[in-house]
Amino acid sequence: MPTTQHVERHFTAGDVVRDVVIGMSDGLTVPFALAAGLSGAVDASAIIVTAGLAEVAAGSIAMGLGGYLAAKSDAEHYASERRREHQEVREKPGAEVAEVAAIFQDYGLSAEESAPVVRALTQSPDAWVDFMMRFELGLEKPEPGRAARSALTIAGSYVAGGMIPLAPYLVLASARQALGVSVGVTLLALGVFGYVKGHFTGARPVRSSLQTVLIGSLAAGAAFLIARAIS
Amino acid sequence: MPTTQHVERHFTAGDVVRDVVIGMSDGLTVPFALAAGLSGAVDASAIIVTAGLAEVAAGSIAMGLGGYLAAKSDAEHYASERRREHQEVREKPGAEVAEVAAIFQDYGLSAEESAPVVRALTQSPDAWVDFMMRFELGLEKPEPGRAARSALTIAGSYVAGGMIPLAPYLVLASARQALGVSVGVTLLALGVFGYVKGHFTGARPVRSSLQTVLIGSLAAGAAFLIARAIS
Repeated sequence: MPTTQHVERHFTAGDVVRDVVIGMSDGLTVPFALAAGLSGAVDASAIIVTAGLAEVAAGSIAMGLGGYLAAKSDAEHYASERRREHQEVREKPGAEVAEVAAIFQDYGLSAEESAPVVRALTQSPDAWVDFMMRFELGLEKPEPGRAARSALTIAGSYVAGGMIPLAPYLVLASARQALGVSVGVTLLALGVFGYVKGHFTGARPVRSSLQTVLIGSLAAGAAFLIARAIS
Repeated sequence: MPTTQHVERHFTAGDVVRDVVIGMSDGLTVPFALAAGLSGAVDASAIIVTAGLAEVAAGSIAMGLGGYLAAKSDAEHYASERRREHQEVREKPGAEVAEVAAIFQDYGLSAEESAPVVRALTQSPDAWVDFMMRFELGLEKPEPGRAARSALTIAGSYVAGGMIPLAPYLVLASARQALGVSVGVTLLALGVFGYVKGHFTGARPVRSSLQTVLIGSLAAGAAFLIARAIS
């Protein structure tokens, strides 16, 4: 049953997974790269822990609130477009009828072929508005309460991801020693995260795993070289 | 003309604007908050510049490559779903006909009302597949070359945003002095950026401006308090 498969795939790559991926991708990568970069310039773990935790606080708040506002603004955009479609359906039904016909024309359908659908839609304004929201504007109805949940999921995933590369610096006083452990632990975590992410989002897990490790390595390498060059 | 207005709005909030917003939101916020946070713990601008530039390198690479892979994987997902729809249309046309009818049923249309559309679609398999991609799966055809452009736009915007809060630390040797200038300059930049962002994305510009300033302030405040508490 193709329909069932589609539904399943959309479910597994759902909003929560998307938010965890957003938060954890950056949470694992940026604090890791910052700590590795600073290790190229200073040998005191204390300063790296301070910078790392400040970054985790800043990054999780910025991404969490950013996600909150993005979801809020999607919901407001949907509501305002819906009001507008309602108004247009009421006040300029002729223009809206032409828009429905135009949508079908894009798929090679003549006005006669789409006429029964157009006629049926004009008879129930609510369904008509729903149809226009989805098929003219391409907007999906946002889930209520999504903004706050999205913010907490993104921020929490960022913090969880960020603590992994920082943990060795919390334990080992020498940043050079901590760096080696942090690189090992974080590359492993990036590999596992990339694999799981690939599995959930429908990408090939092994390739997703390698790509995630590569991004983390490039970011950390660049940060290390820059910090060493200017220190 | 409602259609023209829709087209215009979709154009102004286009992909490039979206990528600039993604990169610059985080670029202005996270290096700003990190530098402000470290100023709560150390007074040497040199260490803050090192950490700040390492963060800008790490953040821009992580976000740029992340955007690249996201766009690539959208394009691959679209192509693989399209192949699958083609196959389904060829091998199980009966099931696909039922799916088209089911789409219209969701809008209260009977099988007779949607029959002419279904019949017309079955006569041109390409249009049928296009229709299913958009209306069953809700997928938009990705623009070719988008992945690389998206990566460069995001990374460039992150660097451009990140240099604003760091500039005062490059000029002033005392981090405490630089902090005051950085806060002033960055809050102003966040306000202007939020206003322009609101204008382009259709949100109320003044509110968008205030929200952007608020996120930056909260992130920087939290980073400052955490860095001071552990140092």
